Amino acid sequence: MVVAKKWILAKHFDGNPQPSDLILQTEELPETLKDGEILCEAVWLSVDPYMRIFPQEQGNVMIGTQVARIVKSNNSKYPVDTHVVADLGWRSHSVVNDDSKLLKLPDMGDLSLSLALGTMGMPGMTAYFGLLKKCEPKSGEVVLVNAAAGAVGNVVGQIAKLKGCKVIAFAGTEEKCTWLKDELGFDHVFNYKLIDLAKALDIAAPDGIDCYFDNVGGDFTSVVLKHMKFSGRICICGSISTYNANAKNPACGPYPYLDIIIKALNLRGIMVHSFKDYFPEGQKQMLEWIQKGLIKTKETVTEGFENMPSAFFGLFKGSNIGKAVVKV
Amino acid sequence: MVVAKKWILAKHFDGNPQPSDLILQTEELPETLKDGEILCEAVWLSVDPYMRIFPQEQGNVMIGTQVARIVKSNNSKYPVDTHVVADLGWRSHSVVNDDSKLLKLPDMGDLSLSLALGTMGMPGMTAYFGLLKKCEPKSGEVVLVNAAAGAVGNVVGQIAKLKGCKVIAFAGTEEKCTWLKDELGFDHVFNYKLIDLAKALDIAAPDGIDCYFDNVGGDFTSVVLKHMKFSGRICICGSISTYNANAKNPACGPYPYLDIIIKALNLRGIMVHSFKDYFPEGQKQMLEWIQKGLIKTKETVTEGFENMPSAFFGLFKGSNIGKAVVKV
Repeated sequence: MVVAKKWILAKHFDGNPQPSDLILQTEELPETLKDGEILCEAVWLSVDPYMRIFPQEQGNVMIGTQVARIVKSNNSKYPVDTHVVADLGWRSHSVVNDDSKLLKLPDMGDLSLSLALGTMGMPGMTAYFGLLKKCEPKSGEVVLVNAAAGAVGNVVGQIAKLKGCKVIAFAGTEEKCTWLKDELGFDHVFNYKLIDLAKALDIAAPDGIDCYFDNVGGDFTSVVLKHMKFSGRICICGSISTYNANAKNPACGPYPYLDIIIKALNLRGIMVHSFKDYFPEGQKQMLEWIQKGLIKTKETVTEGFENMPSAFFGLFKGSNIGKAVVKV
Repeated sequence: MVVAKKWILAKHFDGNPQPSDLILQTEELPETLKDGEILCEAVWLSVDPYMRIFPQEQGNVMIGTQVARIVKSNNSKYPVDTHVVADLGWRSHSVVNDDSKLLKLPDMGDLSLSLALGTMGMPGMTAYFGLLKKCEPKSGEVVLVNAAAGAVGNVVGQIAKLKGCKVIAFAGTEEKCTWLKDELGFDHVFNYKLIDLAKALDIAAPDGIDCYFDNVGGDFTSVVLKHMKFSGRICICGSISTYNANAKNPACGPYPYLDIIIKALNLRGIMVHSFKDYFPEGQKQMLEWIQKGLIKTKETVTEGFENMPSAFFGLFKGSNIGKAVVKV
C-alpha cells in the first residue's frame, strides 16, 4: 500500500505565510489501479511565488507543479519509469486518471530533470516569452530586471544579454549580486537594499530605460516608471513586494497613470499559460542556449518533502538564488 | 499699433487652479513685420486638461492651441485672411517668425473652424488613434469610456458605436448623461456621482470589459481593472481625477500591478503627437463621419479672451459638455 504525503492549506494566507497555515497529512492510496490510471511519485517539486496569490480553497492540497516518475501504470501511453511534469500540487504520490494532466518532459538532453520546473519550465518560458514578446528588446537597448537572481529574473537578464542589450539588474544580497555581475555578466548590478534607486538609475541609465521586466511591483516600480524612455515597454510579471499585503489593506502608492500617459508607456501583464502552444519552440531554443553555455542555470535545492513550507517561505525572504526546488 | 493680450502663469498650480495663478497682461507688438514674419489674431482658443499638468515656467504665457486668422503677413505662403491652427499659447495676437509653427486648417468643409480644436483637432485625433490603435476594438466587444461627455470621451464612444461595440459610458451630470444616452445612443450611461461603480459594471458588463478608454484614472480605474476581461486592452489617455493632487502629496491608491498580471492586461499610454504624421488620414475620416451625421459634435463656448481662466477652471468642475472653447 502506498501512503501519499500531502501539504494542505489549513488557513488562507494573511500577510506573510506562516508555518501554521500549512499542515502535512497522509493519505492511503488504493492497492490497485483502475483502467487508465497512473501512479505518479514526485521526484522534484516546485515552489513559486504565484502560490501565495492564486485563489485556493482552504482544506485543499496546495497547488503546484512537480516532476514525477510513473511508478505504476494502467495506461499504455505512460509506462512505468516515464517522467512527466504535472500540476499535481504538493503531494508525494498521486493517482491520475486523466492523462491530459500529464506532460511528457521537454527534450532536455542530459540536464537535471529539475530544470523542467525552472529554466526549461514555467519560469524559463515566462522569461522567454515575457521578455521577447512583451518587452520586444532590440540590440543596444537598456533592459532593467528586478528580482534578477530569481527563477525568472536571471533568465530574463541572460536572454537580454544574448540579444545585445545593456542589462541593469537588482537583487537583495551581495552573494546574488556577485553571481549576476561576475558569472552572468550583467552590466550594472545593484543590491536594492543598499542604494537609492532613483540615484542608481540616474547613473546606470542616464538616457532612460527601454524595457522593464518587473517581478517586484509596488514602490520599486513607481520609481522606475519615472526613468523609462518615451514609448518604453514594460512586462508586468510579478509583484512580490506586495504579495503579502493583507487583502483588506492592499499595498498602496502613487497611481502610475500620469507616468504612463506622459511617456506613452506600454505595460503588458503576462500569464505564461497564454503561450502554452509555443512552449516547444521556446524550450528548444532554451535547451540549445543551455547546451552551448549561453544560458547558465542555477538552483537552490531544499531536500525532503517535509521541508516544502520552508522552501516556500524562503521565496518571500529572498533566501534562494536561481530556481527554488524541493528534492524528494 | 497692435496690443496683444496674454495670460501669464503667475504661480505654479498647486492643487485646484486658482484665479490668482493667472494674470492678464498686454504687450505692444512692433508696427512693422520683418521679412517672413506673420501676425496672427486668435479667433478660437482651446482650453484642455493637459494645461494643468504639463511643465510650464512661471512667468511664461500659458501654453495652448488656437485657431488664428492671419491679419498681416510678410510670408507669401501665409497670406492675409488665411486661418491656421497653432500652439501660440493664451495670446490674442502673436508675431510668428517660424512658419513651421503654423498648421493650415484641415479640410473641414463648411464646419465651424472651432472644430479644428475639438473633434477635428487634437482631442478628436486622440479619440481616433487612442481607441483604434491602443484599444483595437472589434465589433461586438464591450468598450468602457469615462469623462464620456468630454472633448475626447464623446468621440471615443461614438467611434466605438460605429465599430459595432457596446458602449458603457460615465459622466457627471444628468444633462450629460441624457445627451450621451438619447442623442449619441450609448448603450449604458451612468452618472458616476450617483452610483456604485462596481455594481454598475456587474450589471452593464457581466462578462467583463474588452476595451477601456481611460480619461479619469485614480480610484475609478482601480475598480474598472477588476472588471476587465482576460487580455483586455486599455488606453490610458487622461487622469483628470488626480491632476489637482498636490505634487508633494500625489494621489495614492492600491497598486494595479497584480490586476495587470492576473488578467494579462495591456495598458497603453497615449500622447497624440506620436500620431502627428497620421492626422490627415484621421481628419479625413472624421470629416466624412461628421458630414454624414455619423459623428455628432458639441461644444461649450465661452465668449471673450478675458474669460479664458473661467473656461479652464470649468474643466476641473465638469462644467462643459463636449469641447470647451473660447471665442474671442
